[in-house]
Amino acid sequence: MTVFLLLLSFSVKAQNTEDKRGKYSGNHVKYVFLFVGDGMGVAHSAATEAYRSAINNDKVMHPLSFNEFPSQGLMTTYAKDRFITGSAASGTALATGHKTSINTISMNEDRSSEYPTIAEKAKANNMKVGIITSVSIDHATPAAFYAHEPKRHNYYNIGRQLTGSNFDYFGGGGFKSSKGPEGDKPDLIKMVEDNGYKYVDSKSDFRGLEKNAGKVMAVNPRLDNGAMPYALDMNRKDLSLADFTEKGIELLDNEDGFFMMVEGGKIDWSAHGNDAAGVIHGVMAFSDAVDEAIDFYERHPEETLIVVTSDHETGGMAVGAKKTEYSSYYERLQQQKVTLDVFGDKLDELVKDSPDGEVAFDRVMQITEKYIGLGKERHGLGLNKCDMRLLQHAYEIQFKDKEKPEEMDAMASAYIGKQSFAQTAVDILAKKAGVSFTSNSHTGIPVPVSAIGPGAELFDGRIDNTDIPKNIEVLLWPIGK
Amino acid sequence: MTVFLLLLSFSVKAQNTEDKRGKYSGNHVKYVFLFVGDGMGVAHSAATEAYRSAINNDKVMHPLSFNEFPSQGLMTTYAKDRFITGSAASGTALATGHKTSINTISMNEDRSSEYPTIAEKAKANNMKVGIITSVSIDHATPAAFYAHEPKRHNYYNIGRQLTGSNFDYFGGGGFKSSKGPEGDKPDLIKMVEDNGYKYVDSKSDFRGLEKNAGKVMAVNPRLDNGAMPYALDMNRKDLSLADFTEKGIELLDNEDGFFMMVEGGKIDWSAHGNDAAGVIHGVMAFSDAVDEAIDFYERHPEETLIVVTSDHETGGMAVGAKKTEYSSYYERLQQQKVTLDVFGDKLDELVKDSPDGEVAFDRVMQITEKYIGLGKERHGLGLNKCDMRLLQHAYEIQFKDKEKPEEMDAMASAYIGKQSFAQTAVDILAKKAGVSFTSNSHTGIPVPVSAIGPGAELFDGRIDNTDIPKNIEVLLWPIGK
Repeated sequence: MTVFLLLLSFSVKAQNTEDKRGKYSGNHVKYVFLFVGDGMGVAHSAATEAYRSAINNDKVMHPLSFNEFPSQGLMTTYAKDRFITGSAASGTALATGHKTSINTISMNEDRSSEYPTIAEKAKANNMKVGIITSVSIDHATPAAFYAHEPKRHNYYNIGRQLTGSNFDYFGGGGFKSSKGPEGDKPDLIKMVEDNGYKYVDSKSDFRGLEKNAGKVMAVNPRLDNGAMPYALDMNRKDLSLADFTEKGIELLDNEDGFFMMVEGGKIDWSAHGNDAAGVIHGVMAFSDAVDEAIDFYERHPEETLIVVTSDHETGGMAVGAKKTEYSSYYERLQQQKVTLDVFGDKLDELVKDSPDGEVAFDRVMQITEKYIGLGKERHGLGLNKCDMRLLQHAYEIQFKDKEKPEEMDAMASAYIGKQSFAQTAVDILAKKAGVSFTSNSHTGIPVPVSAIGPGAELFDGRIDNTDIPKNIEVLLWPIGK
Repeated sequence: MTVFLLLLSFSVKAQNTEDKRGKYSGNHVKYVFLFVGDGMGVAHSAATEAYRSAINNDKVMHPLSFNEFPSQGLMTTYAKDRFITGSAASGTALATGHKTSINTISMNEDRSSEYPTIAEKAKANNMKVGIITSVSIDHATPAAFYAHEPKRHNYYNIGRQLTGSNFDYFGGGGFKSSKGPEGDKPDLIKMVEDNGYKYVDSKSDFRGLEKNAGKVMAVNPRLDNGAMPYALDMNRKDLSLADFTEKGIELLDNEDGFFMMVEGGKIDWSAHGNDAAGVIHGVMAFSDAVDEAIDFYERHPEETLIVVTSDHETGGMAVGAKKTEYSSYYERLQQQKVTLDVFGDKLDELVKDSPDGEVAFDRVMQITEKYIGLGKERHGLGLNKCDMRLLQHAYEIQFKDKEKPEEMDAMASAYIGKQSFAQTAVDILAKKAGVSFTSNSHTGIPVPVSAIGPGAELFDGRIDNTDIPKNIEVLLWPIGK
């Protein structure tokens, strides 16, 4: 059988990506958008579509615009040294076309040499380059496009490489800590400015940026550890991922073309926390950013390529749950008003605001109803005895420092893990809506790729994350250039 | 934004399935294979690929042959009246191109009129038709191709429609009960024979079937309620799904072409039980059957279309798990020697074989080690305190009729549901391997479609389950025929 399969694989594979790439003779593109929904698997966008249908009382599942692109593929993501990848290894694959080891940023497996990135190649070919993310700009995914670093957690080193990159536009998140973890290093923001960048962190300055602004680093007015707020937590003080994308197009558009990478980084964070509403709002914000690129594509369809993909799946997300069985109630997720993280902050504030540091269970439940919706009978979010037991249990551990009874402990560690009260609450809501997760980590399932524009067909079918920059390269430049 | 999206959807969608179908001007095909992996989502085939890599100590994820087909899409599956579909409504979509209500077999939503099926149309066009499944032949998926019935559970009525279908080949599973649920109805097997079919249920008769055998209904020598054994439970007495597919090709191959539907029905059953090893062996058997079609395709590449898809995802399966986090140990699943169902039977036998009906925990654990591998330290399957507590708990409920302590009950119903000892054991094994499930039901995530042959590009991108027979029709016959 193995022999048969091996022989077979030649003839079937002959029509696949590598071969298609080698034979490509279509138009070359001038403008490339690579959108990376960090942690976004098939379920994350499907849940978003289902949510949009549910809140509109619509029985048809309308695709997010990128899910309607003419080319769609499924992409393997495994790292050189681990089946389940991480953002650094997968970012490296997406940026350089090489598999590498976990936590490595655009270097080879043993971190002895650097891999050039598609963004660097674009820059060397006189194109303008923009890197946009909703998390901090020195995070693994954006870093993989401009830095080469043995460890993804060397944020300061990565930031320093940003300042010397000469890329044209950085947008969205800022530096995690611009003076290093100890606050004793030369300020990266100053280095950015010294290297000729305009550093913009207010809404009015951002709005005022014009086409001839030169090199720009623009960050959201509110940042938390360098990251933009979650989409669900944004207010009118914030700029959206779509705003940064729209501005990027304005700044980068030029005769010699551009390469723009846009990361929806917080989809992953919400998925790690199994926060279904957070994931869905993250995907919607990401999709809005893609729509800006589509708008540009419509004006330059013969020269624009848009690729939308992900670096890995996070959370083992399912659009279904054990208890809701065949039913779905996605509209219930509307009752969640803030993300898991902000809800956790609200709970912390309760303790801080209490004179004796004590917070009653009833008070916690009031806040839970207000922000997560649990307890709202008329929205299908009444709490049964079992929900109450779980919430009370989480409350006792978090607010009363109570030890878990041994019985609970065995079950909890097997089926819940260590969960905060906030996690327990969003978990209960998600399951009542008919969404569930199996993990707080990444998983190894292939992720979707969507593409539109000349050569989009190279992204059809089964591909690997290393194919992404290889395909882009072939579509940008005649082979050998 | 909505207006923008609506306008946009025209231009982007313009290149999609419906439009591509309308403009198709390529070769027409003569031989069509439609493979349906019941319940098989992206995770089910990814887990199978990861398992094959793991047992071969290979770090690369080698695609199953159908995952390497040049065309791949993602297909929505929702039913007319429910977001999460069932096999009847989805089977109807795959067979007729119409969405219908849950549990309805190839009739309209209110069950007042019948939809013609692609298999019936093929027959009317002088093609030969074969329907193959690993579950009973009157089950929803195969039934949707030859029957029209208001309720999928009317198995006898469905079976009677089979006998009058005049289709050329039925293979794999047999009737659930050939004389009806009460055993008082005319025997369907006799009706099949009276209608000119050769009914074959032994291995030697099966092997002896020759090209000129006429109409054939061939079932596996061992059937359980009409269904073939699970792939993992098969022995040399059984015929495989690949055997039935190979024989189908032999019997149906003729000048006027054929349409063959092959269902891997037990992938779904194993996924319902969250039985990872059962799922993986089911997918491998299904893939072997596809390989028979590929063999035929290689001989008639200009006239053969193979479409491989699924009716819905089952189990909310993830190739990752909460406790294993970023690690994977798929090779551990090799220690499971029988499926969940057969393991349950082994446990029942223990009780039956005991003189006083009592079975000690140690004895149950011996059997568990033997068949599921739990306890085999050298294979990474040592049991910790928490695993033991869960197993003991399940043992007490199942073998001692002990009531659950209230504490356990709340947690169990929230996180486990009612689980038998066998379910608890396969669940622990799967999680130790790094596979997990979120549901015992179907979920609403889009499922993959793979296609090869003339017109395979119609199956690229985002499609709906109703597109499948519409695409096949266009590829079989010039529009209007």
